[in-house]
Amino acid sequence: MTSQIFPSDVQQSLDLVGIFVFALSGGLLAVRKNMDIFGICVLAEVTALGGGVMRDLVIGATPVAAFSNLGYFLTPLLAGLVVFFLHPEVERINRAVQALDALGLGLFCVTGTAKAHDYGLGAVAAVALGMVTAAGGGVMRDVLAGEIPSLLRWDREIYAVPALVGAALVAVLIALDSLTAATGTAAALTAFGLRMLALRYGWRAPRAWHRNGSRTSEE
Amino acid sequence: MTSQIFPSDVQQSLDLVGIFVFALSGGLLAVRKNMDIFGICVLAEVTALGGGVMRDLVIGATPVAAFSNLGYFLTPLLAGLVVFFLHPEVERINRAVQALDALGLGLFCVTGTAKAHDYGLGAVAAVALGMVTAAGGGVMRDVLAGEIPSLLRWDREIYAVPALVGAALVAVLIALDSLTAATGTAAALTAFGLRMLALRYGWRAPRAWHRNGSRTSEE
Amino acid sequence: MTSQIFPSDVQQSLDLVGIFVFALSGGLLAVRKNMDIFGICVLAEVTALGGGVMRDLVIGATPVAAFSNLGYFLTPLLAGLVVFFLHPEVERINRAVQALDALGLGLFCVTGTAKAHDYGLGAVAAVALGMVTAAGGGVMRDVLAGEIPSLLRWDREIYAVPALVGAALVAVLIALDSLTAATGTAAALTAFGLRMLALRYGWRAPRAWHRNGSRTSEE
Repeated sequence: MTSQIFPSDVQQSLDLVGIFVFALSGGLLAVRKNMDIFGICVLAEVTALGGGVMRDLVIGATPVAAFSNLGYFLTPLLAGLVVFFLHPEVERINRAVQALDALGLGLFCVTGTAKAHDYGLGAVAAVALGMVTAAGGGVMRDVLAGEIPSLLRWDREIYAVPALVGAALVAVLIALDSLTAATGTAAALTAFGLRMLALRYGWRAPRAWHRNGSRTSEE
Repeated sequence: MTSQIFPSDVQQSLDLVGIFVFALSGGLLAVRKNMDIFGICVLAEVTALGGGVMRDLVIGATPVAAFSNLGYFLTPLLAGLVVFFLHPEVERINRAVQALDALGLGLFCVTGTAKAHDYGLGAVAAVALGMVTAAGGGVMRDVLAGEIPSLLRWDREIYAVPALVGAALVAVLIALDSLTAATGTAAALTAFGLRMLALRYGWRAPRAWHRNGSRTSEE
Repeated sequence: MTSQIFPSDVQQSLDLVGIFVFALSGGLLAVRKNMDIFGICVLAEVTALGGGVMRDLVIGATPVAAFSNLGYFLTPLLAGLVVFFLHPEVERINRAVQALDALGLGLFCVTGTAKAHDYGLGAVAAVALGMVTAAGGGVMRDVLAGEIPSLLRWDREIYAVPALVGAALVAVLIALDSLTAATGTAAALTAFGLRMLALRYGWRAPRAWHRNGSRTSEE
């Protein structure tokens, strides 16, 4: 199992940190959308676990991991409660939350790619599923909140590209048969670093070529 | 198979009643959104079957039940046609429709939890999937209609909490090895009763703590 | 395997054409929504592969075909790049794109129904999944772009009915044990022809019976 990049207790701890931070971002959007405590918890769950659930469904790993591990399920509820009671404080440390979110992005694109490879998918498909693992929950969060996914919008800093780079590094490491805890961590940190740089310098992806004139009202 | 709480013909009849009423709520929203006959039928299908399909995908029960039972598939079409021809009459008996919807909620949170347990999921995951079974179709209905799911909105009477209570009761009954037709019915009626009380007395869940000042425009 | 209606290289070529054209429609909507290059590619992927992924998940054909065939995955990326650089030209040949889209609709409703039958589903369920295969990607495209799916809207030419006719023809052919490359092609061309006629003559489906008075603002 190459998905066991890290010793399983380390993996578990890292997963829970990533899940917790993703859940915070879901809960905060729910608060901004004026949802109630239940909506906050649902959006926290969906944001934190949605990407992994989509990956597990596509590769046929059922029952999906998010529902067979109690900690995975309870952690977003805890994050939802934290947001419910402390959301002004959580908003205030938004830069720290964004940094932790970038860490989750790096971690999940690495473990998602490795797990997809374990289930027999080819390199390109495994990379795609690594990105789905890292970014899918955020897309579901935005759809449920009635927004166009921020992942797709040109006016947000790039989010998928760091995940793509991290996932592609893992695919290369697997092909070279040299995916270890050390190299896997390096891939995750690369994705994390790119995302942090994108946030700091406002990196955006280009819109369609030679676009001039009218914008749509959606944007 | 504890999911066979009731004799299978009783179970089948109850399922069809629940599916029919959920489909009515989907069809009515489609009419309000000015959709055509086909949109009405699609929204009826999705609302009625979406929750069960999500549960079956997550637990790996494929092909999913909604597509292997002809009656499950045709019932929403019938509801769609009823709404198409008789929607003013259906709107007029909206209170009766809401009561039947509460009955569907009670039924599906019980059977969904039991089925998830049959597939080997733990108690907490089974409860979560019971809620998904009961409420998932409504969420998909609202997303397809371009609305924020009413489940998530603070300005609607609580919907998920009754499902949570019913599903949790089933999990406790399973743990005590005493889930029977009688106790399962009691759990379903508890969820039903809570939802009816919520409707009558306008029970809502609280929004985020110490919230004051500006509201978002979404609400 | 009746899903092997055509020799497998012919099937593969037809699939790729259908995927490419569906991806163009996703990419064009992304451009209209002012998304960046990455959003264009994501919407191209989702539109082209979403219907097939939904079908494969429901019938339990995992890992889903879209992720185990490299060509299926790369074709939408190519279409995304074409749209990114050439979208004014692609918009200008919109009628040709619509005709090719109708061809994809005809093809996928036929192959989707046949594949669902191969996995043991009954005739009605197979027809429903044929429609999901043909139209599901477009629904996901519209939801991600923040629009009510055009499939559901009364003010668009009928899209699902041609798919329904094509899928139903395949189910009848299977029941008569006479689904061949020739008859399968005839079913696909029937769906294609109906869609083209709907586009030319502005065929729409009726809205709810005896509807008069206020319209909703959504429409």
